[in-house]
Amino acid sequence: MRLLKDFDQKDLTAIGKELYRFATDLYPVCRSITGDGIRQTLAAIQNRIPLQISEVATGTEVFDWTVPKEWNIRDAYIKDGHGKRVVDFQRCNLHVLNYSTPIRKKMPLRELSPHLFSIPERPDWIPYRTSYYQENWGFCLSHNQMLSLEDGEYDVCVDSTLADGHLTYGECYFPGRSTDEVLISCHACHPSLANDNLSGLSVATSLAQLLSGRKLRYSYRFVFVPGTIGAITWLARNQEEVASIRHGLVLTGIGDNGGFHYKKSRRGNTEIDRAAAHVMKHCGEPSEVLDFSPYGYDERQYCSPGFNLPVGCLMRSVWGTFPEYHTSADNLDFIHPMQLARSLRVCVGIVDVLENNRRYRNLSPYCEPQLGKRNLYRSTGGESIGTEINARLWLLNLSDGENSLLDIAERSGLPFPTINNATELLCQGGLLAAVHEGEASESATAGISPKH
Amino acid sequence: MRLLKDFDQKDLTAIGKELYRFATDLYPVCRSITGDGIRQTLAAIQNRIPLQISEVATGTEVFDWTVPKEWNIRDAYIKDGHGKRVVDFQRCNLHVLNYSTPIRKKMPLRELSPHLFSIPERPDWIPYRTSYYQENWGFCLSHNQMLSLEDGEYDVCVDSTLADGHLTYGECYFPGRSTDEVLISCHACHPSLANDNLSGLSVATSLAQLLSGRKLRYSYRFVFVPGTIGAITWLARNQEEVASIRHGLVLTGIGDNGGFHYKKSRRGNTEIDRAAAHVMKHCGEPSEVLDFSPYGYDERQYCSPGFNLPVGCLMRSVWGTFPEYHTSADNLDFIHPMQLARSLRVCVGIVDVLENNRRYRNLSPYCEPQLGKRNLYRSTGGESIGTEINARLWLLNLSDGENSLLDIAERSGLPFPTINNATELLCQGGLLAAVHEGEASESATAGISPKH
Amino acid sequence: MRLLKDFDQKDLTAIGKELYRFATDLYPVCRSITGDGIRQTLAAIQNRIPLQISEVATGTEVFDWTVPKEWNIRDAYIKDGHGKRVVDFQRCNLHVLNYSTPIRKKMPLRELSPHLFSIPERPDWIPYRTSYYQENWGFCLSHNQMLSLEDGEYDVCVDSTLADGHLTYGECYFPGRSTDEVLISCHACHPSLANDNLSGLSVATSLAQLLSGRKLRYSYRFVFVPGTIGAITWLARNQEEVASIRHGLVLTGIGDNGGFHYKKSRRGNTEIDRAAAHVMKHCGEPSEVLDFSPYGYDERQYCSPGFNLPVGCLMRSVWGTFPEYHTSADNLDFIHPMQLARSLRVCVGIVDVLENNRRYRNLSPYCEPQLGKRNLYRSTGGESIGTEINARLWLLNLSDGENSLLDIAERSGLPFPTINNATELLCQGGLLAAVHEGEASESATAGISPKH
Repeated sequence: MRLLKDFDQKDLTAIGKELYRFATDLYPVCRSITGDGIRQTLAAIQNRIPLQISEVATGTEVFDWTVPKEWNIRDAYIKDGHGKRVVDFQRCNLHVLNYSTPIRKKMPLRELSPHLFSIPERPDWIPYRTSYYQENWGFCLSHNQMLSLEDGEYDVCVDSTLADGHLTYGECYFPGRSTDEVLISCHACHPSLANDNLSGLSVATSLAQLLSGRKLRYSYRFVFVPGTIGAITWLARNQEEVASIRHGLVLTGIGDNGGFHYKKSRRGNTEIDRAAAHVMKHCGEPSEVLDFSPYGYDERQYCSPGFNLPVGCLMRSVWGTFPEYHTSADNLDFIHPMQLARSLRVCVGIVDVLENNRRYRNLSPYCEPQLGKRNLYRSTGGESIGTEINARLWLLNLSDGENSLLDIAERSGLPFPTINNATELLCQGGLLAAVHEGEASESATAGISPKH
Repeated sequence: MRLLKDFDQKDLTAIGKELYRFATDLYPVCRSITGDGIRQTLAAIQNRIPLQISEVATGTEVFDWTVPKEWNIRDAYIKDGHGKRVVDFQRCNLHVLNYSTPIRKKMPLRELSPHLFSIPERPDWIPYRTSYYQENWGFCLSHNQMLSLEDGEYDVCVDSTLADGHLTYGECYFPGRSTDEVLISCHACHPSLANDNLSGLSVATSLAQLLSGRKLRYSYRFVFVPGTIGAITWLARNQEEVASIRHGLVLTGIGDNGGFHYKKSRRGNTEIDRAAAHVMKHCGEPSEVLDFSPYGYDERQYCSPGFNLPVGCLMRSVWGTFPEYHTSADNLDFIHPMQLARSLRVCVGIVDVLENNRRYRNLSPYCEPQLGKRNLYRSTGGESIGTEINARLWLLNLSDGENSLLDIAERSGLPFPTINNATELLCQGGLLAAVHEGEASESATAGISPKH
Repeated sequence: MRLLKDFDQKDLTAIGKELYRFATDLYPVCRSITGDGIRQTLAAIQNRIPLQISEVATGTEVFDWTVPKEWNIRDAYIKDGHGKRVVDFQRCNLHVLNYSTPIRKKMPLRELSPHLFSIPERPDWIPYRTSYYQENWGFCLSHNQMLSLEDGEYDVCVDSTLADGHLTYGECYFPGRSTDEVLISCHACHPSLANDNLSGLSVATSLAQLLSGRKLRYSYRFVFVPGTIGAITWLARNQEEVASIRHGLVLTGIGDNGGFHYKKSRRGNTEIDRAAAHVMKHCGEPSEVLDFSPYGYDERQYCSPGFNLPVGCLMRSVWGTFPEYHTSADNLDFIHPMQLARSLRVCVGIVDVLENNRRYRNLSPYCEPQLGKRNLYRSTGGESIGTEINARLWLLNLSDGENSLLDIAERSGLPFPTINNATELLCQGGLLAAVHEGEASESATAGISPKH
């Protein structure tokens, strides 16, 4: 499986355009944790990858939570005394407090005011606010809009429904040779917000397309769920199955101009944590590894102590640290085709590590084998060696059946693909053999050298 | 036990004044490792806390040492040819070499000189010098005094006694629910030196007063001993009992303007080491953690290899690193009421950690519990969360029966009290339960999640 | 065994001159991996230390390699149309491609050119190039020489032989009380290159002279081998015996003006790794510890996964990082008597650590023993203590039968000799006793203190 090699033969600019186009298509939809917005979004994903869509009825108990009523909205506005829509859901779906209960009433400004949300520090931006579990109605608007509202009567309308229905989520599964799974999870509940999380939806969908039809080592499961309640619902309904998850990534906020950030799993030293850190380090962009914390995206649920799954979170700019976060400024100008493409490439690189991270055994472990006679060395002595030969020497030296390719890549400082590529010629040359998966590592070395 | 919370409701300025007043009261006494000076000091402490005073006879063998003769002094001086006291013990008790044997003799300067000690680099300060185990007589004086001595006859007098008697130390014990002990140890043998160690005596006495009458988890033992020989004597007479010591602190030099220093125990990674480092880090003053070394105060004895007790040493400026150390400049101007009060607060903070450092178990470990329905979360979604909610999330995420509150405080970067305070509401909400002390940690988690 | 103490009583300048003289003597010899050049070199070493010389026949299989034909050379030159030697082996043996096959032919420049090697970036220097395993002929010359060659016919001669013969190496063995061995290995195959590796040959030979006739804890084995194929041959013929190697050093490039570099063994945390790092840290020159990598000198072979021996590499400037490396500029001006002497001193210091690194047991482990009554402490209290007393306190505190002297030196920050010297008086004073080699460390402490 040479996923990264194949990917690098494609046109990254074209990939970026395609990723951006999909985000653009999904941008206008008014998503929430339930309702037709997320259904419409999952249907668009289903057009691209095989998605199994589940509907879970309102009132279903999921661990400590209950699936809420389904919310749908047709229209919402505030009209002034002249009948002019001064706040209009049709122009931007962030204008309505997400999960706002229906209302239709004339009222003076002082009665309306407690239901209005703005950001004084960013007077041109509309905030994104929600009230899922406390019934309330409200509007979000720019602070300048707020200030321009004069005293007087307003005609207030939220034409929404909050009623028994369903919570909807989608799953895409690609079986591999092993039933051990890699989980890719995205939240799909945010309305017109581009980085958070249309970037994640777009990249995850493309990653699934790239894996489709391939011979895979691991099985892959992509889940597109409403944030928090969706991940909890999915976990509640798959409590036994999640034991198969060996590695997992939450993808979010990976379309902006910021450098990469990877937030480690609760365990902090799992293979996905190391793979993500390694790929980022060699990706050519600034990157940072962050310790786990229990606040954030759905890794909160996957890493709750009862599950404690090896799931991290890959981002560019970290939520809450950039002013555009959860505002109307997180729009299609905030994300960029090439950034999406490069994020996809990092995801591909991580999958490439997971798929190829095996242990090998040097079949000629006493002294260095003579690479020269196999045309695997430079011809004139005395000069320095290149990266390819260096990778061979590292592989031979550390392949005692214990060290994985990722171990060797980390210790050598060489990128994983360089190490991985070097295995081929050495195996062909009879110098290296893959250790069978599941082969006990101790017996693996015992055969070579009792001294080791 | 909310020791720190209660302490923080008191007036820190008033506490500082009281600490300083006690140091001032003790300042004039001429203490030594035996004799009436230390008896008088222990009596003053006994006026404030219940102190059991022990007398150990001269000649008693204590490990490799022998309790020395008892030393007492009434007067000492050097008179010049005019009968004028040019060096006078009555003006400063540092003038006499501590443990000086008695002498009464007229002699020329050249005979006197070898018995005079001064500090040429600090010509105005009187050094503090001792000769406990080698019989000698002598005087300490400022270098300027030394230089002003003209040739001629001097009348030299040390009106001291060195005779069979006793070594005296004091102990104050507060029983707690457990017989496991916390040891607080101070040396009480230095004459008129304020930071070293009236600051320690004053803070330890106040700490004992704060613990008096409280329901305590641990038993607390305060020992006030002459340095080195006193700690050795106490250990020799309590060889079996010290096995109960779980945590210990030597307090010394904590009244000056320097930042905090904590010298770790020989083991280096015990709970007291971590608690002290954590409390210092969040105390708002500069602080530094120092590795163990075998030179210093009585932690030398507690951390000798035969005992290897978990005892560290809390200081402000480190002995030997400031010029006033062991000179007359370590006087009442060198220590400050507010510094003493802040030092006491750090001690209270450390005890607060020890008393409250338990393990808890998240009773709803699969996914995050719904804090909102218990009014433990913010009401409007989309905004950032505060420290209190953050502390709840950390507690729930890491409370798998394995992590202690100190583990959680360290990993979250939040102060221990913030974590500790958060346990209350979560326990009331049925989300968290304390793990029984002594409950096997493995079985504690086994009940929750076989996957963990 | 006080090797370092004895060494420090010698005249370092005289030692440096002698080391440099030996390098000077060996400089003109045209060495290669086989042939009379290395034989002559080993004979010169044999004049100084007892060296057992082995000859291994061409064609002998050694692991994945085969001992090559033996190469000898009498003359080589390029004559221009006027019969003038424009490139002349007699002036510098680097001029011939090492292992060049014989040739005697007139040819035009365009036919000659592919057989010429130069360094355009360093136009005055002759490169050192080899072609051991691919039959080829060639010349190395300065780039300026290369540019000055005009078109025309040249008379090209390499008067060499490449024929069945032997590979030669030398071994010097000093038995110690234990059959456990310390290996010192140098490559002896480079022609007129001073730092790489006449410096190593000279220092290793002197080190052997210093060990000769001494009562040693370990047995010492010095091997002088052609690089790569020689080490492989030696390992192949001593496959069982190398199990006795407990510590090893490859010595190379230790005569130049650079600071010290120690490249750790593949294991990375062995006693030789710690000893070398410790001695370098206290040697008074800049030094750096480098992680293991599988490219370099013969540590590549000793640290191949089948052997995985505790062998590191001690250098000054690291091969490949200085421009003179593998050129005619690595000449006798590039190395310096005093640098050679200081390098030898570091080697002696490392051996001194290995020879003396024992565990001791404090016989008075409860509290500090009273050093004063044994005249092991200062006489007047109150002043600071010196390094010697500090070393005693560290020794007593950490000598629980578990910590070695190197552990204590590392933790205390004191140089190993200071710690080692302190053992003597404490043992004489009855306070310390050496733990028998081979005594189980657990039972060693069990006898002292059940609490420890």
